[in-house]
Amino acid sequence: MELYSGHINKLIEELAALPGIGSKSAQRLAFHLINMPADKVKRLASVIVDAKENVRYCKECFTLTDKEICPVCANAKRNHAQIMVVENTRDLAAYEKTGKYDGVYHVLHGAISPMLGIGPGDIKLKELVSRLEGEVEEVIIATNSSLEGETTAMYISKLIKPMGVKVTRIASGVPVGGDLEYIDEVTLLRALEGRVEL
Amino acid sequence: MELYSGHINKLIEELAALPGIGSKSAQRLAFHLINMPADKVKRLASVIVDAKENVRYCKECFTLTDKEICPVCANAKRNHAQIMVVENTRDLAAYEKTGKYDGVYHVLHGAISPMLGIGPGDIKLKELVSRLEGEVEEVIIATNSSLEGETTAMYISKLIKPMGVKVTRIASGVPVGGDLEYIDEVTLLRALEGRVEL
Repeated sequence: MELYSGHINKLIEELAALPGIGSKSAQRLAFHLINMPADKVKRLASVIVDAKENVRYCKECFTLTDKEICPVCANAKRNHAQIMVVENTRDLAAYEKTGKYDGVYHVLHGAISPMLGIGPGDIKLKELVSRLEGEVEEVIIATNSSLEGETTAMYISKLIKPMGVKVTRIASGVPVGGDLEYIDEVTLLRALEGRVEL
Repeated sequence: MELYSGHINKLIEELAALPGIGSKSAQRLAFHLINMPADKVKRLASVIVDAKENVRYCKECFTLTDKEICPVCANAKRNHAQIMVVENTRDLAAYEKTGKYDGVYHVLHGAISPMLGIGPGDIKLKELVSRLEGEVEEVIIATNSSLEGETTAMYISKLIKPMGVKVTRIASGVPVGGDLEYIDEVTLLRALEGRVEL
């Protein structure tokens, strides 16, 4: 876009390269940033750089954290014999928000996807296997209910079961509050297959 | 959100404060930034600060630009006797994209809004009036077709007409390619009122 001047164009380009930000939002954001007080702009820029520099993987579960060991893994009250495997830190946060899970996690940072060329070696799988050498009783696979998530779940289950660890998968079905009319057939069939006695 | 560590939380907070970015997008952006290569993150941060520091108002038309005078105002081939009044730099860019307007602009940086407490003194109005002392023949008011935009248009027209300058307003009606069925009644009535003979 040669409609704006050099610095504005550069900013719009950088912003538009971020996920979920199209060219219109990038323009809006750019002008917002330019109109913000200078000290706030500097603070935003330094917070971005600081986060990048100070955030690393937890040595236990590989979630993103400020410290060597994340607060969940460091908490002795959590059940360390129960590991929930998730695709990324946001999924971990989603389960933490429920406040009802008291085990620990393992963050894969991705899912197996032959389409995108992501194999078992590209996600934190061998790190999971090495954790099973401790006293782990159950591995709960909470990867997404997508093709990649299901593939990953199948792979992990085949890999781990021979080691004598209980492997479970979170239930798939109609979401709470969901209106059957608007739910796709695959989910409806899953919900039927997974029906439980009342 | 105490689900993430300090640096991540701070980053999410800062991002969520930007317009059009909700808490979910802020989380997604934050993790994207943390996973980006360090040099790209630093470049983004410096581009943001640079844009803030180097972008100022054009002395003539008050659009945002890198230089004292923006490229449009600096262009001698443009018709400097025709001024299009727009609310902000993005609106200017929208008209520039058409490539058919050869006059110059005046950017108000806002619109009169009694609801938000924005009066005539809060936008670049007296700067517009002082430009009319030169050889200006026509002022085209291209503020938005919203309540605030219309109020501003009316105000400007009453202010400027006594000075003997021709004041026009861009047409309001059905957008090109628009399906009548999906267009609101006010627009339909406007289109009817503004009908032209074929």
